[in-house]
Amino acid sequence: MMSTDIFDIPMELLARIEAAHNILCISHVNADGDAYGSVLGMMWMLRGLGKRACAAMPDPVLPDFSFLPGAGEIVGPDGTADDYDLIIGLDMSSADRMGDVYDAERFANIPLVVIDHHITNTHFGVVNWVEPRCAATAQMLVILNDRLGIETDAHLAECLLTGIVTDTLCFRTSNTTPEVLESAMCMQRAGAHLAEIVRRTLNRMPFSTLRLWSAVLAGAHLDQGVTWVTVSREQLGQAGHEGDDSRLSSILSSVNEADMSAIFTEKLGANGRPAVECSFRAKPGFNVGELAFQLGGGGHAPASGCTLAGSLAEVVGRIVPMLIAERRRQVETCRPAF
Amino acid sequence: MMSTDIFDIPMELLARIEAAHNILCISHVNADGDAYGSVLGMMWMLRGLGKRACAAMPDPVLPDFSFLPGAGEIVGPDGTADDYDLIIGLDMSSADRMGDVYDAERFANIPLVVIDHHITNTHFGVVNWVEPRCAATAQMLVILNDRLGIETDAHLAECLLTGIVTDTLCFRTSNTTPEVLESAMCMQRAGAHLAEIVRRTLNRMPFSTLRLWSAVLAGAHLDQGVTWVTVSREQLGQAGHEGDDSRLSSILSSVNEADMSAIFTEKLGANGRPAVECSFRAKPGFNVGELAFQLGGGGHAPASGCTLAGSLAEVVGRIVPMLIAERRRQVETCRPAF
Repeated sequence: MMSTDIFDIPMELLARIEAAHNILCISHVNADGDAYGSVLGMMWMLRGLGKRACAAMPDPVLPDFSFLPGAGEIVGPDGTADDYDLIIGLDMSSADRMGDVYDAERFANIPLVVIDHHITNTHFGVVNWVEPRCAATAQMLVILNDRLGIETDAHLAECLLTGIVTDTLCFRTSNTTPEVLESAMCMQRAGAHLAEIVRRTLNRMPFSTLRLWSAVLAGAHLDQGVTWVTVSREQLGQAGHEGDDSRLSSILSSVNEADMSAIFTEKLGANGRPAVECSFRAKPGFNVGELAFQLGGGGHAPASGCTLAGSLAEVVGRIVPMLIAERRRQVETCRPAF
Repeated sequence: MMSTDIFDIPMELLARIEAAHNILCISHVNADGDAYGSVLGMMWMLRGLGKRACAAMPDPVLPDFSFLPGAGEIVGPDGTADDYDLIIGLDMSSADRMGDVYDAERFANIPLVVIDHHITNTHFGVVNWVEPRCAATAQMLVILNDRLGIETDAHLAECLLTGIVTDTLCFRTSNTTPEVLESAMCMQRAGAHLAEIVRRTLNRMPFSTLRLWSAVLAGAHLDQGVTWVTVSREQLGQAGHEGDDSRLSSILSSVNEADMSAIFTEKLGANGRPAVECSFRAKPGFNVGELAFQLGGGGHAPASGCTLAGSLAEVVGRIVPMLIAERRRQVETCRPAF
């Protein structure tokens, strides 16, 4: 039906799903839209096959995602049973991301299979379907659903489109292939409301964010192809919430004159001493992944981050020159993609 | 090929295009991405049919859109000839939007046909294909191209995907139907680069915009479900450019507490007297199209605008109460979609 024959689903995965009757679906700590969308989507898909299925996640459900069909049924570590005959780990590159939900002792005799789109996946299941060409695990489930020949109901469609929309920032990331749009289109036709999902997940912020951004952007800097802002605890306190880092990052990374950007957010470290959360972005052809890794953080070439001890002034004074030097080195030694 | 049989293309439009040999394609003043995308897309499509075709626009090409294939060939009022046998007006609701490019006297004997997606279209051509269910005129051209059976080359695909991406803010507007995603998918498969188009059109701004937004957002207001900002000529002067209305609109329309939003931008009217450009946005289920139309402007339910005489204070003082009343009326009399 769909033009997605380029994706190979392991036969053993299909066989194990077909053979199972009572399945636990698990997604990851610090859940995002794709974690919710894929774990609930899998649950609905299995129920569509007439099976028992339960969705479990290590953390409580975030209010922003409580609109998803089935969100109220998600259980935590205490809500799981012992009698599953299959566990499906979704959208996770390694087993530790399941947190306390996966009890290795209790679940020792239950096969664990993995469905994930992260290239860094450690293949921790007995069967692992890892497809980095997919922009979201939810996109993989659209393909799986099509292959299983299940009619997509509106519940399932809503969950899977949410995963696709949030992981691609509504089709803006560079891995948005025609197959992503096709999957999204199929979910829309099956009853998912794209505009409503965008409104509920990406296009929402408290009014106080406008004032926070006003204060933060007043201190925007630009030097030698690097742009950055700082967000102080005082500013966050006035706004009364944590801000919207990803959206502010996307604004900063749009600056024509800059190839790299950074947001430095003042935090109280676990030990009560000052710390700064650093969020980096790079334009296509540039790489901020290595710098974050050197600083003890992680991420990818276009987006990375780390947390450093010190005051805002100390961290900015140390990191901005590193970003400028790194950007200069990359301009000199690399040929940017565009 | 595409599942777009729901859209009826007038037979007379197809007949006139097939009969013509030398065609002038015109789009509108204050051009946006859909104006460029559809006028250039039409040009490439006609050339694909083996015809002579010229693209004309009233204003010089904006640097942001000079990347589009054929942008260097766009002519102004002085660059048109006299010997066309068909004129196609694209993405315009009324004839005056063609500005000086359409010389009513010189072109008196040349038939003018209209292809447009604005519901407010005045049907000013001898044939008018007006399809408000399409999110962009460029989307209509994808359907037209499919109906004409022309193979889509990468030039054409790049132009049409740019129109679709810019008019839907990359698929975020509420009129992004499955057919929009299908058209975009087809253009990607034909060679258009979605991420590159996003980077070049939506994700770019001068650094000075950050400071402009800082100043503008400091004055953000929220009252009874309506949020608004003003942009003064002084603020624009300090930034040294026109700002980025559509992105600022999208930020304002994300505010959780508001169903309608407005940006009021101070302009110098044509007569040298103060004027204010009003840009409105509505959440799904609300409508700002009618209000803009009553005020002499135009647009759609989710996004509309008008230009009014008066100072910022006068216009804000008059229009904000109208928005608040309109929003209250819609809350009371309509059942919002969500």
